[in-house]
Amino acid sequence: MSTLIYNCTAVLMDEAHTVLPGACVTVEGRKISSVGTARPDGSFDETVDAGGGILMPGLVNAHTHIPMTLMRGYGDGHALQEWLNDYIFPVEAKLDDRAVRAGSDLALCELIASGVTTIADMYMFCDTIAQEVVASGINANIARGTTLFTDNFDFKTYPACVELRELVDRWHGYQDGQILIDACIHGEYTSRPALWEALAQYAADRKLGMHIHVSETKTEHEECKGRWGATPIQTLDRYGVWDVRAIAAHCVWTTPEDWALMAEKGVSAVHNPASNLKLGSGVAPVVEMRQAGVNVCLGTDGVSSNNSHDLFEDMKLAALLQAGTRCDPLALSAWDALEMATVDGARALGRNTGRIEAGRDADLILLDASAPNLIPCHNAASNLVYAAHGSNVTMNMARGQVIYKNGEFFTIDLERVKREVAEYALPRLFG
Amino acid sequence: MSTLIYNCTAVLMDEAHTVLPGACVTVEGRKISSVGTARPDGSFDETVDAGGGILMPGLVNAHTHIPMTLMRGYGDGHALQEWLNDYIFPVEAKLDDRAVRAGSDLALCELIASGVTTIADMYMFCDTIAQEVVASGINANIARGTTLFTDNFDFKTYPACVELRELVDRWHGYQDGQILIDACIHGEYTSRPALWEALAQYAADRKLGMHIHVSETKTEHEECKGRWGATPIQTLDRYGVWDVRAIAAHCVWTTPEDWALMAEKGVSAVHNPASNLKLGSGVAPVVEMRQAGVNVCLGTDGVSSNNSHDLFEDMKLAALLQAGTRCDPLALSAWDALEMATVDGARALGRNTGRIEAGRDADLILLDASAPNLIPCHNAASNLVYAAHGSNVTMNMARGQVIYKNGEFFTIDLERVKREVAEYALPRLFG
Repeated sequence: MSTLIYNCTAVLMDEAHTVLPGACVTVEGRKISSVGTARPDGSFDETVDAGGGILMPGLVNAHTHIPMTLMRGYGDGHALQEWLNDYIFPVEAKLDDRAVRAGSDLALCELIASGVTTIADMYMFCDTIAQEVVASGINANIARGTTLFTDNFDFKTYPACVELRELVDRWHGYQDGQILIDACIHGEYTSRPALWEALAQYAADRKLGMHIHVSETKTEHEECKGRWGATPIQTLDRYGVWDVRAIAAHCVWTTPEDWALMAEKGVSAVHNPASNLKLGSGVAPVVEMRQAGVNVCLGTDGVSSNNSHDLFEDMKLAALLQAGTRCDPLALSAWDALEMATVDGARALGRNTGRIEAGRDADLILLDASAPNLIPCHNAASNLVYAAHGSNVTMNMARGQVIYKNGEFFTIDLERVKREVAEYALPRLFG
Repeated sequence: MSTLIYNCTAVLMDEAHTVLPGACVTVEGRKISSVGTARPDGSFDETVDAGGGILMPGLVNAHTHIPMTLMRGYGDGHALQEWLNDYIFPVEAKLDDRAVRAGSDLALCELIASGVTTIADMYMFCDTIAQEVVASGINANIARGTTLFTDNFDFKTYPACVELRELVDRWHGYQDGQILIDACIHGEYTSRPALWEALAQYAADRKLGMHIHVSETKTEHEECKGRWGATPIQTLDRYGVWDVRAIAAHCVWTTPEDWALMAEKGVSAVHNPASNLKLGSGVAPVVEMRQAGVNVCLGTDGVSSNNSHDLFEDMKLAALLQAGTRCDPLALSAWDALEMATVDGARALGRNTGRIEAGRDADLILLDASAPNLIPCHNAASNLVYAAHGSNVTMNMARGQVIYKNGEFFTIDLERVKREVAEYALPRLFG
């Protein structure tokens, strides 16, 4: 399968910050095969007239909990512990495969329509999530959120670890890496050293990544210091957790010592600005982390704490928030925010995406540059970050396949998903 | 002209926080005539099947500079003074009526498509702006931004004041108040007491409102204290500026003494969260102002410093920002943010809109509740503030007239506007 996309302005996300008007991009199979301004010779299975739109790499949403889409807004307006204990946990206890399938599909529709081609998801029912992601056509790093509240632990028999090994056997590297399985410690505050040691070892042996919630709230951060005499980043480091490619979600309360360690070990921070604000967690030190050499990428978090999967919103918010809270309009540029949502996310997830160049995965999205909210275009990066919404996305190509165009989904039956949500999942969870 | 809207969930924005499923709303001429769940008897010129959508009052965007839409993103990435001096001011010097017309129309399209039915605009070329607003069908408070840098001032002959009087004669109260003219002091830092005194007197005589930039940046706020020994709010008060209905845009650096004065005088604050963050101005004390009894409403500001007219974005940002910066998820609720964008905005602008009730202006918008990003709906207010985007708006009715439906504009020729922007305005300003 080969595709030619022409008549677009391509934002390559390369180091030279290239914005290429009149671009022609060709795709062979799952890879980008050429990028330029001359229309290439030869014939193509498909040609896409981009109508003068903006072509950019598909977005990487590096921290999600997609089945939680069923809980969008549920319990909003309650304080954190009440929200978790009285709303979220009781509902999660009623989840089953079918409800997870419906919630995941609903999330995937929203993600795809707003330009995401890769996610890093942390949840339960991961086999079902993997199936739905594969069917949708996008890429995912999938992590089985694992907690441990006892000292009686055996990696061989502990259910979440059994599930992890089955997931790795079945899915890790599936279809040229469409699915990667990451090891996962839910958080320092919800687990114990026996788990950290075992998962660090297993991840190193199987060459998996690691996905962990870190220093999201001040309480979590401070209590960890009380328990172990060190921050979550430093505590987990003692058990080898950061010796593999790792993503640390939130990092709101991380310290200069943490950043030095993260930079040294190659731990990526996932910034989730909307979620961190909404839950009252605080503002992550994005500028400082980047200055310290930490790779910082971007996520929406689950939409029960955001409540949107539109990563364009989080790109804007990331840039605005650093500028506004330090009274420095230049703190984090539009280009910085775009990098966080594309190439930096790709690096965090161990993926060859996030940039338009020959040899990279053909994860590409097109935005309608003729929408009133994108006129005029004095600066493409500025328009993409500060003016665009996910709804400006008119095409989503993941792994060389057009999975969405002008409101139509080609891999998911949206009407069926809506019926499943309304007729099965919601009655089961909330009925 | 009479209209029946049925088959919707109506968010009334009343004091009881009513969310009415199966609502029927009728409109007679420019007013809402009934609200209920029973389908009223009688025949209607038009019936609108809302398709199960969410009906709410049209949004009030209480601080705009609509012609500046031509400068969307222009000079982004430069510090404030450089941005103003090297980018914005030189371009503004090239504006003419035709360019202002094109820029205003472009803004009006974006505003209407994202659910705004009323604006408070401050700029130059106000006669042209008023013409375009009237043609578009929405409501506007229009203010001629007025500066004074000399002591040689005569209200009778000073050009901006001559223009103001002409505007008042021609437009104030036009078509049952579609257009109101507000008096306008651009800011304390760009004017002098002679102007304050004259405009305060004129506004009181003619029963006009007042629109002023106040304490947007720390520098502005502190320099005013240095000049006059008091904050901008307190300084302007000495000249009677707040003796009329007044809106103070930004108020980022206002003090407890300012809030007490604002509450006493009935001065409304316009919060512009995206603009304040983007320009590095800071985070306005919205919670404190509300607690002190100040009416706080919401604005996008001009899109050269936002860069979007989507007020749904600013509603979400307003709520998130107060929660996140004070680590209190309950600081400003979804309902609070909705009030700021509707009924509180109406109060600020002296208008009978912002609420769905009989006798109010028929300014109503409909959102598609079947969009993936609005499923499920556990809480309508939460979905509207945290999950909705302007692009979910499917219908905009202003003053009883449907001016937008499903992507189509009925009062503005979008293609003509795009041509005017591309072929006239942009070459003139940036060519």
